[in-house]
Amino acid sequence: MKAIVVRPPTPGAELKEVPDPSLVSGTVKVRMLENGVCGTDREVAAGRLITARPPPGRDWMVLGHEALGVVEELGEGAVGLREGDLVMPINRRGCGQCVNCRIGRPDHCETGMFRENGITELDGFMSQFLVEQPRYLVRVPENVRDVAILAQPLSDLVKSVDELLHVQSRLHFPCEDGTLECRKALITGTGPIGVLVSMLLRTMGMKVYAANRREPKEVEKAIFSEVGVEYYNSASGYGDLYKAVGGMDVVFDTTGRADVIQQLLPLLRNNAFLAFFGFSSEGSMNLTSLEIQRLIFKGAALVGLANGQKPHFERALWHLASWKTVWPGAVRRLITREVKVDDFEQVRKVLERKEEGEIKIKLLW
Amino acid sequence: MKAIVVRPPTPGAELKEVPDPSLVSGTVKVRMLENGVCGTDREVAAGRLITARPPPGRDWMVLGHEALGVVEELGEGAVGLREGDLVMPINRRGCGQCVNCRIGRPDHCETGMFRENGITELDGFMSQFLVEQPRYLVRVPENVRDVAILAQPLSDLVKSVDELLHVQSRLHFPCEDGTLECRKALITGTGPIGVLVSMLLRTMGMKVYAANRREPKEVEKAIFSEVGVEYYNSASGYGDLYKAVGGMDVVFDTTGRADVIQQLLPLLRNNAFLAFFGFSSEGSMNLTSLEIQRLIFKGAALVGLANGQKPHFERALWHLASWKTVWPGAVRRLITREVKVDDFEQVRKVLERKEEGEIKIKLLW
Amino acid sequence: MKAIVVRPPTPGAELKEVPDPSLVSGTVKVRMLENGVCGTDREVAAGRLITARPPPGRDWMVLGHEALGVVEELGEGAVGLREGDLVMPINRRGCGQCVNCRIGRPDHCETGMFRENGITELDGFMSQFLVEQPRYLVRVPENVRDVAILAQPLSDLVKSVDELLHVQSRLHFPCEDGTLECRKALITGTGPIGVLVSMLLRTMGMKVYAANRREPKEVEKAIFSEVGVEYYNSASGYGDLYKAVGGMDVVFDTTGRADVIQQLLPLLRNNAFLAFFGFSSEGSMNLTSLEIQRLIFKGAALVGLANGQKPHFERALWHLASWKTVWPGAVRRLITREVKVDDFEQVRKVLERKEEGEIKIKLLW
Amino acid sequence: MKAIVVRPPTPGAELKEVPDPSLVSGTVKVRMLENGVCGTDREVAAGRLITARPPPGRDWMVLGHEALGVVEELGEGAVGLREGDLVMPINRRGCGQCVNCRIGRPDHCETGMFRENGITELDGFMSQFLVEQPRYLVRVPENVRDVAILAQPLSDLVKSVDELLHVQSRLHFPCEDGTLECRKALITGTGPIGVLVSMLLRTMGMKVYAANRREPKEVEKAIFSEVGVEYYNSASGYGDLYKAVGGMDVVFDTTGRADVIQQLLPLLRNNAFLAFFGFSSEGSMNLTSLEIQRLIFKGAALVGLANGQKPHFERALWHLASWKTVWPGAVRRLITREVKVDDFEQVRKVLERKEEGEIKIKLLW
Repeated sequence: MKAIVVRPPTPGAELKEVPDPSLVSGTVKVRMLENGVCGTDREVAAGRLITARPPPGRDWMVLGHEALGVVEELGEGAVGLREGDLVMPINRRGCGQCVNCRIGRPDHCETGMFRENGITELDGFMSQFLVEQPRYLVRVPENVRDVAILAQPLSDLVKSVDELLHVQSRLHFPCEDGTLECRKALITGTGPIGVLVSMLLRTMGMKVYAANRREPKEVEKAIFSEVGVEYYNSASGYGDLYKAVGGMDVVFDTTGRADVIQQLLPLLRNNAFLAFFGFSSEGSMNLTSLEIQRLIFKGAALVGLANGQKPHFERALWHLASWKTVWPGAVRRLITREVKVDDFEQVRKVLERKEEGEIKIKLLW
Repeated sequence: MKAIVVRPPTPGAELKEVPDPSLVSGTVKVRMLENGVCGTDREVAAGRLITARPPPGRDWMVLGHEALGVVEELGEGAVGLREGDLVMPINRRGCGQCVNCRIGRPDHCETGMFRENGITELDGFMSQFLVEQPRYLVRVPENVRDVAILAQPLSDLVKSVDELLHVQSRLHFPCEDGTLECRKALITGTGPIGVLVSMLLRTMGMKVYAANRREPKEVEKAIFSEVGVEYYNSASGYGDLYKAVGGMDVVFDTTGRADVIQQLLPLLRNNAFLAFFGFSSEGSMNLTSLEIQRLIFKGAALVGLANGQKPHFERALWHLASWKTVWPGAVRRLITREVKVDDFEQVRKVLERKEEGEIKIKLLW
Repeated sequence: MKAIVVRPPTPGAELKEVPDPSLVSGTVKVRMLENGVCGTDREVAAGRLITARPPPGRDWMVLGHEALGVVEELGEGAVGLREGDLVMPINRRGCGQCVNCRIGRPDHCETGMFRENGITELDGFMSQFLVEQPRYLVRVPENVRDVAILAQPLSDLVKSVDELLHVQSRLHFPCEDGTLECRKALITGTGPIGVLVSMLLRTMGMKVYAANRREPKEVEKAIFSEVGVEYYNSASGYGDLYKAVGGMDVVFDTTGRADVIQQLLPLLRNNAFLAFFGFSSEGSMNLTSLEIQRLIFKGAALVGLANGQKPHFERALWHLASWKTVWPGAVRRLITREVKVDDFEQVRKVLERKEEGEIKIKLLW
Repeated sequence: MKAIVVRPPTPGAELKEVPDPSLVSGTVKVRMLENGVCGTDREVAAGRLITARPPPGRDWMVLGHEALGVVEELGEGAVGLREGDLVMPINRRGCGQCVNCRIGRPDHCETGMFRENGITELDGFMSQFLVEQPRYLVRVPENVRDVAILAQPLSDLVKSVDELLHVQSRLHFPCEDGTLECRKALITGTGPIGVLVSMLLRTMGMKVYAANRREPKEVEKAIFSEVGVEYYNSASGYGDLYKAVGGMDVVFDTTGRADVIQQLLPLLRNNAFLAFFGFSSEGSMNLTSLEIQRLIFKGAALVGLANGQKPHFERALWHLASWKTVWPGAVRRLITREVKVDDFEQVRKVLERKEEGEIKIKLLW
């Protein structure tokens, strides 16, 4: 079968023939319909991601961890799926040792010995076919098919917002009317993660501010306006935002930049939650003991968040379904381009750099 | 303005002129678009509901607790809403004394001195206009308008399923893959409540069985088939169901009949949750100490569930939005008839008895 | 070694020689110091307990599930314990299949295929020696040795009160000062379970009422007075209690009698929790649909509670330690008699019937 | 009455006559028995604590927030206490505005407008008498009197460990046997806070390491040996500890030094919890974006913790009671000196600097 293959840490990606996976007992064969491309794929293809390594004994692996396919054949004893079902594979496999992995929650793997498709020791999903156990496949409702590819990044955020709300239930977090409408959240960064988490926190009822260090693009204006998110240009810091609307109950950083995060600390209200979500290799922050003391006075919680699992994929799909009804224009704008895999020159460009105005690009098989 | 007026415990309902409510500071005026009719309205109109009583000093009150309207005018200082916003009023007001009411959760009122619109001491919503504080109004997305009226009964179920999942987290309730797909739920009764809770538990991922003591109607067949619920005819008890699929992790009774509930106890698996939700005045059960002992061995939880609040209304609307995308046919079938209020003869019939095949009837203003 | 042997369902218990258990890799050998006797032991010895059966392939088993011993020898590779450590064995072993058993919580076993020492398919602890894996042994602080035997029944209650508080966190259960001092609990039955749970709920800060259908015995008067529990004679029902102090937030039944439980239902306040804990073979209750409806209006939770695990044993020991300081007289009174195993005629009597004024009897090796 | 009076930010403390507080309706009069001295008192007395300020309209206030007294007189309508009851006052009063303060949890005050006795706008407890509402007084069991003064600092830690365990329940935190015995905690700093939190985490069952940048003092050796805590000399960093025992599930910093905290980050295991508890004005840390990324990969939670409320005082007293039984020597060593208030020269010294080997010093009235 054809597959997009990488050889980390050697840069580059190619479309080539690889052996078909074999349908063994208890597995199903999935014909790929489309893949999503994200920043991590680009880091892997560029040979820059430290955790990227092929399966043991090989110098290559299939790229990709966002995928949508259709069940084409059932192996002996495979249960829970039927031919023709739309499915998405989940992309982390537990270490098999720690308690959290053994209860289906490798997002909290304790050993760090989990594997990730298309990243660490497991083939990814950018191939014509996939063979997988049903427990790692999520059924996708037919009517969500057009945007289902977003469920993979969204699953990470569903899990993250779950964790945020769980941590915040250390206090009485709901407002006086029982909702979260009095709670204010600031999202830094307006890439796909920033946009999706804005939509998710709006769905929870919070007031949401999304910040980037420039004027908003047209697509951002359109989405944020429909969804009810206020855009803030943070080119000259966050002081004006603080003056205008006060401190934040939630700050969700998707930039990963320590220098940005340092600017965010003064915005934290008492009991605030600061999510570390994004990765960056640039920037640093300096924290004095006095600033730590302020975090104590505030009772702030700073938490590193990552990786959704099967229950989060399922709920991500329900969110996408609801957004299609409530915010149809915004949802439509989230898929900014589709590229056919066979047009591999285009694919190569897509894997090399983020496009102007890109939110999510789909590769079609 | 016109309103549908009742005089409990005197039976009967009439369409008559009542004084317009006055727009005071901090409130908004809502023009009614439609009302939903439920079994409780019929009990009130028939003078049979014990808890039904008009506001102090009056022998009449406006009926109705399911409503959708549009904001027409804002009183001085009213914040959080704009003219033209679609809104639904929530229908229970706290006692103002206990901790739970004071934190916006009169669904857990401790004194029992809460009031309910159209039922206990507060005018209901079947009137041309409504004046209300924004904190008791839930914004409704425009694209959910057609089925938004269902958010009131659904809010009760969102809250109930929340409570169910909270209680069950006394154990490790998720399956080995982190989802709830291995969990089985039986719903008894296939009225609007039974149908809506089936959809909700399917949304949570559970396997759902819905039972009634007869063959399913066409509308039920259509809905359950689309939603993936298995219908079970319980006319000769639940033995065949147990033989076929084993015990249940969740039993959600909407019949309120003690004799039905008695039949359900043997179906409870270890750690099962039995929800008491429905009301009935007929039937009784006999429990021996040995049967209590079995509930202990099983670690069963039997919980009385009722009343959703503002956060549950909001989430009910999101569920309806997602169902419109995923199960469009089923959602469309939930509204079985629309009747114009001005055709009061029809309204009277609707208030007198449930129609054959009725799920939800809307009254249009 | 010597052991107290039973042959359910044949009645009777005898002191006889049985083979010494062999110290295999990863286990430790424990020399028994003492055993506690409880009602279940008597039911097993009388051949009346349905779940009592010897290990497969045998018609006899060692009785007993309350034990305190000292580590005498460590098998190869046994970690976590040293010679001379005081230890208590926990008395339920998981099914090895369901998720809850695999995470160390067979108190929520889903299959029901767990085993219990001295009851179901596993030898009990009334023997000179015991060989066990460290994971099933709880270290006992030297200074709690005199009352440690109570940690087994108390562990069941620690777990039960955990579950109670977890279930009640479905609402805002703490009082306005953050404590539980405004919450009222009624305990029915004043056997060892009734006394221990009274002490535990007092420790949580609640107002506690303990009821029995007679005047209190001297030992009960002394304990309840020191602990701050109000005794109530329920010989003529619970009406006077209700009149005097109003409804209850928690009712913890240790009688297991359905007829008693029926009398308790009207005492439940809104949001109340009713614990089913005790076993009885006599009595029954009749519940109408209207009474179910009242449970719904109240939002009552009725939950079957049983079995503490290792974390609950550990916490039971800490409670006993604290009670020795705060309520030294009451704690001393909990052990009502000590009997030497070699005086087997006395042991036989102890196993045949509960003594007048008995709370806990120890058998000494 | 006599009181120890401060005039922040002017340094110094004096014993002087101040007006007796008047017993108004609903309050009780408490005769002081003893006060505890902590580092914060010294900061206030030295005029260095920024948040220290007298009640409005005054330039002086009574110092002290650790106190034990006896109820001497009941004001009209005061309920819940009797003359002769031993009591401790809690030392933070809510803002009266935010939801958390209104439900008795000003430890999560949202406005920051709470007040603290002896620190911010409220007289402290170093005075002969105190007049207070019963809701702010915690009953102390007679048999815990000797060490009850420790319940104030311990209450902060009970609340902190509650929060820690709550946050960690974002994952499956218990070990395979349901306990916390596999979890490792490192405490930095071995002052009273470090010692008390070590004891608390041992009570929870964790493996505990306590670190300071020097060899342990005799009193520390004695306490840690009895309690089962391993002491670690961190003078040359934490590398040797990591090599010897691996990463930590919990790091609880009581030093407040940013430079120390920076050294601790590499010790965090996956899913680890880092508690910010101590205050310091010296030191700083530098964090690169890559180090933030590691916190994300680890899923670390960094949380600022402070302030126990009434329920935490109550539980602190139960812990002290249990420790008196289990670790009697260690508990006895926690009170390192008693000083009579009338010997004010000694008191002044105590308020000026921490003594060599000091854990907790009591002032006796």
